[in-house]
Amino acid sequence: MTAPSTTAANTPGTSGGVTTPQGFRAAGVSAGIKAKGLDLALLVSDTPATAAAMFTVNKAQAAPVLVSREHLQRSGGVARAIIVNSGCANACTGDDGMAVARGMASETARLLACPDEQVLVASTGVIGVNLPIAKVKSGLPLAYAALASDQGPLAARAIMTTDPFPKEAAAYVTIDGHEVAIGGMCKGSGMIEPMMATMLGFVTTDAAVPLPLLQRALREAVNKTFNSITVDGECSTNDTVFMLANGCSGAVVNDANYAAFVEGLTAVCLELALGIVRGGEGATKLVTVTVTGAASDSDARRAAKAIANSLLVKTAIHGGDPNWGRLIAVAGRAGVEFELSRAVVKMGSIVLFDHGKPHDECAPDAAAYLKGKDVAVSVDLGSGSSTATVWTCDLSAEYVRINADYRT
Amino acid sequence: MTAPSTTAANTPGTSGGVTTPQGFRAAGVSAGIKAKGLDLALLVSDTPATAAAMFTVNKAQAAPVLVSREHLQRSGGVARAIIVNSGCANACTGDDGMAVARGMASETARLLACPDEQVLVASTGVIGVNLPIAKVKSGLPLAYAALASDQGPLAARAIMTTDPFPKEAAAYVTIDGHEVAIGGMCKGSGMIEPMMATMLGFVTTDAAVPLPLLQRALREAVNKTFNSITVDGECSTNDTVFMLANGCSGAVVNDANYAAFVEGLTAVCLELALGIVRGGEGATKLVTVTVTGAASDSDARRAAKAIANSLLVKTAIHGGDPNWGRLIAVAGRAGVEFELSRAVVKMGSIVLFDHGKPHDECAPDAAAYLKGKDVAVSVDLGSGSSTATVWTCDLSAEYVRINADYRT
Repeated sequence: MTAPSTTAANTPGTSGGVTTPQGFRAAGVSAGIKAKGLDLALLVSDTPATAAAMFTVNKAQAAPVLVSREHLQRSGGVARAIIVNSGCANACTGDDGMAVARGMASETARLLACPDEQVLVASTGVIGVNLPIAKVKSGLPLAYAALASDQGPLAARAIMTTDPFPKEAAAYVTIDGHEVAIGGMCKGSGMIEPMMATMLGFVTTDAAVPLPLLQRALREAVNKTFNSITVDGECSTNDTVFMLANGCSGAVVNDANYAAFVEGLTAVCLELALGIVRGGEGATKLVTVTVTGAASDSDARRAAKAIANSLLVKTAIHGGDPNWGRLIAVAGRAGVEFELSRAVVKMGSIVLFDHGKPHDECAPDAAAYLKGKDVAVSVDLGSGSSTATVWTCDLSAEYVRINADYRT
Repeated sequence: MTAPSTTAANTPGTSGGVTTPQGFRAAGVSAGIKAKGLDLALLVSDTPATAAAMFTVNKAQAAPVLVSREHLQRSGGVARAIIVNSGCANACTGDDGMAVARGMASETARLLACPDEQVLVASTGVIGVNLPIAKVKSGLPLAYAALASDQGPLAARAIMTTDPFPKEAAAYVTIDGHEVAIGGMCKGSGMIEPMMATMLGFVTTDAAVPLPLLQRALREAVNKTFNSITVDGECSTNDTVFMLANGCSGAVVNDANYAAFVEGLTAVCLELALGIVRGGEGATKLVTVTVTGAASDSDARRAAKAIANSLLVKTAIHGGDPNWGRLIAVAGRAGVEFELSRAVVKMGSIVLFDHGKPHDECAPDAAAYLKGKDVAVSVDLGSGSSTATVWTCDLSAEYVRINADYRT
C-alpha cells in the first residue's frame, strides 16, 4: 500500500499526531498512578465529533470498555473527549471499577461542560488492581489546563506502559477540494494480538464523516493494520481504538470520496500498528510474514498468524538462523490446506525450499539477510491463490525478562 | 490417577524402561550423525510383536513417519524392531529422504533376518537436512552387536536432541494372574504440543494384546498424557509413539482385564510425558493447569491449552509473579464460554479472584507458593461442569537462547 503523504512520527516533537487535524487539543500529565512519569492523557475536540470505536473481543472486558460502549450508545456516536490513564487497566475490578470509570468520565464532562456520555474512557496497565479515582481527579484539572494543539506528543507519552517509544502518525488526503488531516496515536508492546483493535489507539480527523461511514472506514482500516499484527498472541481485556471526526476542515466524506479517506486512514493506522510491533516487548526486528497460495482468505490469515506467533520461528529469526524447516512445520500444523510438494519457503527473495526439496546451499545468504532490522519471510501453501500479510517481531530473552517481573 | 507400582527412571541406570518387559533388547551407539554423542538407537523384540502407533497430524510429515505408516499397513501391525536416529529429522527431504528411511529399515531387517515391513523407523533433529545413509549403515552393525536387555538406558540417551536428561518409565500390572511389565522411553524438549503423539515415544509390554485393543489402549493413554502436554505450542513433523506387545509374559489382554492394562500404560505414558515437560527447553518448573466449570469437555481442554501456551502466563510463573489477571485475560480470549462474575482463579489452593473481585491481599502467599518447582494453577470458567488438565513448563530466557541458534 502506498500511503498519501504520511508523516512518520515515532519521536515526540515531530509534527504528526492526534492534534494534527484542526480543532483537536490534547494534554499528557502525571497524576501519580504510575510510580513516576506521565500517566494521564486527555484528548478533546473543540466541537462535538462523530465517534466510532472498536473494542476487544475478550470476554473479560475491562470497566472502561463497558462504560465507553455504553456512552457511545447513549450519545448516538457523538463525543467531545477521551480520558485515558496508564499504569492500571481497571480490569477485573468489579462494581468498584465501573464506578471509577464512570467517575473519570463525569469529572471530565464537568470540566468541559458537556454530557457525561460525550466522554469516552480508556485504561491500560496491570489487570486486577483498583484504580484510585482520587489520583485521576487530582490530575484531571492539570490536564484540562494544559490542553493545547501542540501537546499530542505528551499525550502519546502519557498512554505508554512498557512501550519503548511513543507512537504517532498523521496523513493528509484531499476530500471535496479540502485538505483533510488524519492523525493518530497508540500504545502497546506486550499482550498484543488484537482480535478487534489494538491495546489502545486514538485516531482523529477534521473531516466530517457520517457515523455509519466512519464506523465502516475504521473497521476496514483496523482489520488491515491493528488486527494484522501480533507480538505475543495475547488479546487483552482493554483493547480499544477510538476515532473522532469533527468536520473542522469543512470537508464531508461520502460514498464518492470514501476510498481516498480510507486509504489515508489505513496509512495512519498501519504506521501506528507497525510502531507497536517495532516496539514489541524485547523486539529487535520487524518481521513481515506473507502467506501465498492459500485455498482461502481465512486459510491464508490463519497460516500467517500461526507463523507469526510461532516461538520457534520468532526465536530463529532473533538468532539470525535461517531455520526454514520451522516455517514448514508451522504451516503443516496450522489446520489449513497445505501441499508439501508444491510449497515454497522464502526469506526475502531467497528460496530455501521448493518442489519438495531443500536449498540449504542458500542458508548462508539467508543468514546474512536475517541480520537486517526489517525482514520478510513467506510461505506458499501450494493450495490456491489467496494471500495474507501479518506483522510480528522476534522473540528475545528480553521479552522473558520484561514479563517475568512485570508487577515487581 | 494413582499408578500401579510405577518406577520413575529419569536417570540412566535405574530399572524401568523399554527393556523391562521380557523379550526386548535395546542398544544405543554413536554413528556420527551428531557432532558427538549417541545418536542411533535400536529396539528389538525377540519374537514378532503386535505393533500400534500414533503419528503427528502435521501435514508436512517426515519420511520416517510415511515409511513406518506404510510398514504397519503392509505387516498388518506386526514388528520386530524400531530403528531411531537423532541429529536429523529426515523431514522435508523429498524422494531422497524416503529412500534413506527405507534403507534404514531394510538394513535393520537384513541383520535381524526379518521382512523390511517388520521394522519401524523414527528420526528426530533438524528439519530439511539430508540424513547420510552411510553413517546409519556404519552404526547399525555396532547397535546390533550391542543389543542387550540392560541397554534400554543407552537407547534412551541415543534418541535425545535438546533434552537435558533421558526419559524412561516402567510399571507392572497383574493380568490373568501373570505379572505384566510395561516400559517406555521418550524424547522431546522443544517443538512440543503433540497433536497426536509426542516427538518420539516407544512403549513395550510383554503382554499379548490383540491389535485393535492395543491401538485403542495406546490412543486412550496418549490422549491423557502425551497429548495433554505442551512446551511451546509447536507440533512437529516427526511426532510418533510406537507400542510393541510381544506376549512373552504369557498374559493376554482382553476386554475383561483391559482397564487394568490401560491404567498401567497410562501411568507409564504420564511419567514419560511429564519428563518431557520437566525437561522442556529452558524449563525450571512443571506447571499443572486445570480448568473447571467449563461448558463442555472441548471448552475445558481449549481453555487449558490456551493458558498453558500463553507466553504471559509462562513468563509470570517463571518470574514467580502471581499475575492472575493474565489467567483471566487468556480465559477470556480462548474462544470458550466464560462468565467473569462466576470465574475463580487459584494458584495452589490460594484463591486470587472470585465473585468478580480480586483478592490481591493473597498475592504474597501466592508468590511464595510459586517459588516451588511443581506448581498448579486453576481457572473455573463459571459456565458448566467439565474439566481438563494440561501440563506445561515456564518460559525462560534460556528457551530463547536454545532456539535462537539451534542450528549453529
